[in-house]
Amino acid sequence: MAKLLLLHGPNLNLLGTREPQIYGSTTLAQINEAARAQCDAADCTFDCLQSNSEAALVERIHQAYADKVDFIVINPAAFTHTSVALRDALAGVAIPFIEVHLSNPHAREAFRHHSYLSDLAVGVVCGFGADSYTLALEAALKRL
Amino acid sequence: MAKLLLLHGPNLNLLGTREPQIYGSTTLAQINEAARAQCDAADCTFDCLQSNSEAALVERIHQAYADKVDFIVINPAAFTHTSVALRDALAGVAIPFIEVHLSNPHAREAFRHHSYLSDLAVGVVCGFGADSYTLALEAALKRL
Amino acid sequence: MAKLLLLHGPNLNLLGTREPQIYGSTTLAQINEAARAQCDAADCTFDCLQSNSEAALVERIHQAYADKVDFIVINPAAFTHTSVALRDALAGVAIPFIEVHLSNPHAREAFRHHSYLSDLAVGVVCGFGADSYTLALEAALKRL
Amino acid sequence: MAKLLLLHGPNLNLLGTREPQIYGSTTLAQINEAARAQCDAADCTFDCLQSNSEAALVERIHQAYADKVDFIVINPAAFTHTSVALRDALAGVAIPFIEVHLSNPHAREAFRHHSYLSDLAVGVVCGFGADSYTLALEAALKRL
Amino acid sequence: MAKLLLLHGPNLNLLGTREPQIYGSTTLAQINEAARAQCDAADCTFDCLQSNSEAALVERIHQAYADKVDFIVINPAAFTHTSVALRDALAGVAIPFIEVHLSNPHAREAFRHHSYLSDLAVGVVCGFGADSYTLALEAALKRL
Amino acid sequence: MAKLLLLHGPNLNLLGTREPQIYGSTTLAQINEAARAQCDAADCTFDCLQSNSEAALVERIHQAYADKVDFIVINPAAFTHTSVALRDALAGVAIPFIEVHLSNPHAREAFRHHSYLSDLAVGVVCGFGADSYTLALEAALKRL
Amino acid sequence: MAKLLLLHGPNLNLLGTREPQIYGSTTLAQINEAARAQCDAADCTFDCLQSNSEAALVERIHQAYADKVDFIVINPAAFTHTSVALRDALAGVAIPFIEVHLSNPHAREAFRHHSYLSDLAVGVVCGFGADSYTLALEAALKRL
Amino acid sequence: MAKLLLLHGPNLNLLGTREPQIYGSTTLAQINEAARAQCDAADCTFDCLQSNSEAALVERIHQAYADKVDFIVINPAAFTHTSVALRDALAGVAIPFIEVHLSNPHAREAFRHHSYLSDLAVGVVCGFGADSYTLALEAALKRL
Amino acid sequence: MAKLLLLHGPNLNLLGTREPQIYGSTTLAQINEAARAQCDAADCTFDCLQSNSEAALVERIHQAYADKVDFIVINPAAFTHTSVALRDALAGVAIPFIEVHLSNPHAREAFRHHSYLSDLAVGVVCGFGADSYTLALEAALKRL
Amino acid sequence: MAKLLLLHGPNLNLLGTREPQIYGSTTLAQINEAARAQCDAADCTFDCLQSNSEAALVERIHQAYADKVDFIVINPAAFTHTSVALRDALAGVAIPFIEVHLSNPHAREAFRHHSYLSDLAVGVVCGFGADSYTLALEAALKRL
Amino acid sequence: MAKLLLLHGPNLNLLGTREPQIYGSTTLAQINEAARAQCDAADCTFDCLQSNSEAALVERIHQAYADKVDFIVINPAAFTHTSVALRDALAGVAIPFIEVHLSNPHAREAFRHHSYLSDLAVGVVCGFGADSYTLALEAALKRL
Amino acid sequence: MAKLLLLHGPNLNLLGTREPQIYGSTTLAQINEAARAQCDAADCTFDCLQSNSEAALVERIHQAYADKVDFIVINPAAFTHTSVALRDALAGVAIPFIEVHLSNPHAREAFRHHSYLSDLAVGVVCGFGADSYTLALEAALKRL
Repeated sequence: MAKLLLLHGPNLNLLGTREPQIYGSTTLAQINEAARAQCDAADCTFDCLQSNSEAALVERIHQAYADKVDFIVINPAAFTHTSVALRDALAGVAIPFIEVHLSNPHAREAFRHHSYLSDLAVGVVCGFGADSYTLALEAALKRL
Repeated sequence: MAKLLLLHGPNLNLLGTREPQIYGSTTLAQINEAARAQCDAADCTFDCLQSNSEAALVERIHQAYADKVDFIVINPAAFTHTSVALRDALAGVAIPFIEVHLSNPHAREAFRHHSYLSDLAVGVVCGFGADSYTLALEAALKRL
Repeated sequence: MAKLLLLHGPNLNLLGTREPQIYGSTTLAQINEAARAQCDAADCTFDCLQSNSEAALVERIHQAYADKVDFIVINPAAFTHTSVALRDALAGVAIPFIEVHLSNPHAREAFRHHSYLSDLAVGVVCGFGADSYTLALEAALKRL
Repeated sequence: MAKLLLLHGPNLNLLGTREPQIYGSTTLAQINEAARAQCDAADCTFDCLQSNSEAALVERIHQAYADKVDFIVINPAAFTHTSVALRDALAGVAIPFIEVHLSNPHAREAFRHHSYLSDLAVGVVCGFGADSYTLALEAALKRL
Repeated sequence: MAKLLLLHGPNLNLLGTREPQIYGSTTLAQINEAARAQCDAADCTFDCLQSNSEAALVERIHQAYADKVDFIVINPAAFTHTSVALRDALAGVAIPFIEVHLSNPHAREAFRHHSYLSDLAVGVVCGFGADSYTLALEAALKRL
Repeated sequence: MAKLLLLHGPNLNLLGTREPQIYGSTTLAQINEAARAQCDAADCTFDCLQSNSEAALVERIHQAYADKVDFIVINPAAFTHTSVALRDALAGVAIPFIEVHLSNPHAREAFRHHSYLSDLAVGVVCGFGADSYTLALEAALKRL
Repeated sequence: MAKLLLLHGPNLNLLGTREPQIYGSTTLAQINEAARAQCDAADCTFDCLQSNSEAALVERIHQAYADKVDFIVINPAAFTHTSVALRDALAGVAIPFIEVHLSNPHAREAFRHHSYLSDLAVGVVCGFGADSYTLALEAALKRL
Repeated sequence: MAKLLLLHGPNLNLLGTREPQIYGSTTLAQINEAARAQCDAADCTFDCLQSNSEAALVERIHQAYADKVDFIVINPAAFTHTSVALRDALAGVAIPFIEVHLSNPHAREAFRHHSYLSDLAVGVVCGFGADSYTLALEAALKRL
Repeated sequence: MAKLLLLHGPNLNLLGTREPQIYGSTTLAQINEAARAQCDAADCTFDCLQSNSEAALVERIHQAYADKVDFIVINPAAFTHTSVALRDALAGVAIPFIEVHLSNPHAREAFRHHSYLSDLAVGVVCGFGADSYTLALEAALKRL
Repeated sequence: MAKLLLLHGPNLNLLGTREPQIYGSTTLAQINEAARAQCDAADCTFDCLQSNSEAALVERIHQAYADKVDFIVINPAAFTHTSVALRDALAGVAIPFIEVHLSNPHAREAFRHHSYLSDLAVGVVCGFGADSYTLALEAALKRL
Repeated sequence: MAKLLLLHGPNLNLLGTREPQIYGSTTLAQINEAARAQCDAADCTFDCLQSNSEAALVERIHQAYADKVDFIVINPAAFTHTSVALRDALAGVAIPFIEVHLSNPHAREAFRHHSYLSDLAVGVVCGFGADSYTLALEAALKRL
Repeated sequence: MAKLLLLHGPNLNLLGTREPQIYGSTTLAQINEAARAQCDAADCTFDCLQSNSEAALVERIHQAYADKVDFIVINPAAFTHTSVALRDALAGVAIPFIEVHLSNPHAREAFRHHSYLSDLAVGVVCGFGADSYTLALEAALKRL
């Protein structure tokens, strides 16, 4: 049975309350629930973590290596633009991953146009709100 | 009944033969067929155009406005990085659109990291080969 | 009798419908009509072309050389920022020309602040909507 | 009765003597005379100032606010590229204005390609020698 | 009763010992004490946190949202220049905040001239040592 | 008895009328009055000058040196970004000074993010409207 | 028998008339004739196309793939600096090619110093007028 | 007796498993063991910490100050390129330190060519795999 | 009899008091006296002006044109780096000039490495304190 | 009888041994021999020099001036990107020259994309291995 | 028996006299002596060269290739930042090498932050004065 | 008796023949003769060297240190823009020096606007042809 890990970066625990005009009103719990259902339907185990701590995310990725996780879907949020450590963790464990964004970073501040992860990712999905996750998971599940 | 238009930019007629390690072996005809089926299933009319001509694409977008097309999915290919005309056409007709790429431009040459369309798009899907289209259409159909 | 050619670049056929808050509600036909009248009054022949195709504009400029056109007024629209071919065509035929813009490119996106044509032009008129054409034609006619 | 103010920046008092191959041989007095006639014909009051002092121009703009001037036409000359104070003055009084240049700055040194005023201006006219003023005034008068 | 939160970024626990020629000899405890007194005098509740952890600061900001904190005064220290997560947290909770620095970043290394927070802040106070806090609190309290 | 000089740069005479959404509705006279009161209360002489002329400000700073002024508070306004002469004057007389801004330059146009004065200043206060002056004066008076 | 294709980009139909001080007085017909003779002598089939249309050139390259052309010699003219589509076409068909210029782009405007094709080309020949073609063909024929 | 502290940044716990072609197959435990032996032989106390948390490293450096550690050897890994907090911590405690890298950052991605620590370090050793530590420790021990 | 004009830019009236470690202790009056003597000895009329006002310097240059001044020696001070108006004035009157600096701008802040005047000057002399004037005058007098 | 000089820059003595995948296996002696034969056939004297010393090459160019050499063909190798002295020597003697490269610098490191010689050269030939010389000589001989 | 070559770039003959606060007081002879002893102890032949001539260093590297030298340790000094010829020589002979610096280039002028050699080197050691050589040799000898 | 050394960089042996419109018709021998006379008159020993070799100039500077030369006047010519070795030599011997140019580098190509020597020089004299040397020597002799 394949294993999928869904990671959420900093501030995403605020989802549903924070800047709704940008991120929509769905909560993170709802997103995780839907993702779990999507994985269940594909006979794939599901685990997830939201953390505001770069270290916690890095260590969860290390753990994924030990757990033989097959695929990671990650919304790195603010860490997209600042975390070489996250990049190194993903490169280090060599688990294929998809980068997801709720909003469209190309339509926001210039510093959001660069990602430390995109060139290592299988692919990127952005701009569709909670649907970004659904689409990324669909792509991930198809690759297992 | 909603209307969707799928546009393919220059050189995509080569799909299946051109740089398969980057673009995969699916042909454009197969992609269009699958897209049509996806639209049919959603009770949405489907039309598509591949062109190597910026003018032809610009004019097809103008026509979409006359035809009251509801959504455009576009793989602008090389024009992503060079065509302000395409950007102006999409902005001019004000039809919501999704930008699609077969490969992951972030993992290629530096000049492919900038898109003249992304900041106007609803969202972007890239890196999943032919699946990029499937995912983008799914997102589009959900928004009709 | 002097000869004047008025050229319009891509998407200008949408005039009157496209982003009216930027470009106004006058149609291209109305602009051409007014321009023709202005030339008639100055005893100058008038011809015009709108095209979404860079090649068509380049070739119309070549034709102008054969036709011994004395002056060109051009709104290069999106090609302002991307077309070296248009620049080379205008430099090649060595017909004096004026660059026109309906809106004020300096008040828009950064990529609109550079023009491939301006340094070769006699002058530039921008920001006055349809009046930009009237003013440019007035300047052109005075130079014949 | 509408009110128009024509402003000339530094060194323009030299007009007719200074670098005639760039600026032509018309004097500033001739330009002002013609401008006044143009305004008279449009039933618009006219006033003008040439100054080599940034402060004098800034204060004339403040005065224009007190005088309820309706439109400003300004050739900021060297201040185009260096004066944030002039920009702030024009923004502060919120009187619509047109930027004028005798020569075509795009065909000159690179530092002349940036203007601190253009993005706030209604429009820009450049490259037509003394005619630049005539055209700009025509546009201004039409907007009163 | 209004609520104010004072946040201190990484290494500020060293205050009074670390690079005294830059940061002065006042300790953080003394700064917090003075700040509390200033808030008490204004009938405003006061809370504070120093942390070397970006995640801890982000989560304290989230908590402030739940606690209905009215104003944040923050010395982001090193995170000023590197933390998009902190920016997103402050933007997400939409609590007005003031950015404070003990030293004057403009007089230090070039990388300290950019802040990820300043453009979102109500205002910035820097260069006055411990007085920077006093002034920022004064401004904050006046806005409650 | 200590001496303090308050300087205001170009266009600040418009205060209260100019772009109130950015600068507030307090007039410069009110700001000067309040500043004088603040200095009186601290047994410090007060003098002030607003000028739209860089030269006038430079010379007032020279005069301050002759007058043995102890501290300068300056809102350089537009000259912040363009005046090396002001920088040289302040460096030349070696009187400590604080830079003040009514609005927050970091939240405005990119060219306002650089100051020719900040690295020489004791500190900077910005974004608090008329309160920026009050805070800066408070800091200045404490340093006398 | 080997097959060679010679491509000419926009405005090259003007050869012999356009800016002769830069491009010489040889016509394109004369260049093609000489090239054909050079190929005949080497027992190589020859075909050629000049087009002002990017799309036409892209499609001629696609056709070359179908026709099993062995080598392409291309003077991309203005498209050198602007056409990713041409680059993608040449990369897509994977036919070895040589880039040719009549003039020396390094001695012209700065924007002519970058080519979207050079790094994919076997080699580049520039600056020798019509001889640039002769030399490039000689190199091409030797590689068949 | 002198005291030395060895610090390892994020992802270095993966050593021996992660990208062995870049980092070699020695584990972190082996490196620490060897380092301890090297210090023992030099009659120097040894302590070490690997952490994926910037805060933990910052605080360990603070602790080193309290513990009167004489020298730090640090492999900042990903934090080399992103952590001003680490820089500030090292500058704050003013303990001399050497920067170490297993691989040669100059031969990797461009963003790895800049270090926030190098200019404050006594020296830098990179590219020798586990030997980088041995050499750095040797240099450190010689300086005690 | 030839005519020479010596111009001094802003803050140079402070000479002898201002930053003596950079500018030396000679006063401006002493420099002017010495310059006058040098001109007298060469049978050349001498005039000079120091001004903190850009406009005053610009107008003195205009006056020099009317007075048929043969050569200008100018220490533009801060205006070196900010005044296009001064550049335009010197270019406009077309009087040959030498640029002088007391200190060596190349050894100071980066913004002092660019001069708006140098490329138009006959030559530049910098770094020799008051001797810079003597040398420049010597060169000027030799060219009369 | 015309005179041609062939110059080879640093490391080209290694030809045939050094990085054969980039430079081919032909030796420099073979290249010189072939070049001499090519010149002989054209009734042109031939001389050549390879040197690893910039000074030696500069002086050989000076000598060429004394010897009335008519044309220089030069492969500046590494000096292409670093030697202003070579540029000045070639400009100083004003002998027409062609720049040659064995490999295609555009397909190598970014610092190889700039040449200090190209804009002064008659033309440039690169990417054809030893044939680059043959082609350049052919062009040179045709110009004698 | 393995062979090691130690190279010193320009000005290093001044060692012990030149800027001792940066480079220490050890002479080059002492460094060479120590290096020879270190090699002797490792049963490795040792040779060395200091030269102020880029050509001499390039040719010594070529000679090393003929001599079958196994490892080079090089302190390229000023050539670090300017010599592509040295880079090409080292790449051409394909002998592994270590880059050494006495001082820490990252703590000096910005132009010293880039090295033309580092990305080709096995590793880099800098900042330890004469010890930099000892450490580099130790690393080199371990790799033989 | 004081000692002065005059150094001339590459290509200056061509003086009087090379690009006379830029460098004048005086020969280097004449310049040296005049310089010697100027030194004789000041009771200062004089020596000079022109070299096209960076190494020769570097070593002559080293020799100057041994010879206790008091002042160096240097026209570094092309090495101005490329030689860190020359910079290091001059910094290493710590002999005060003046940088001289015949022409005005600010009026030439952009790469001539940066000098590796200027910030270390006492001063710079440029643009006066052979007089540049006379003036620089005068300044040098005054400083002995």
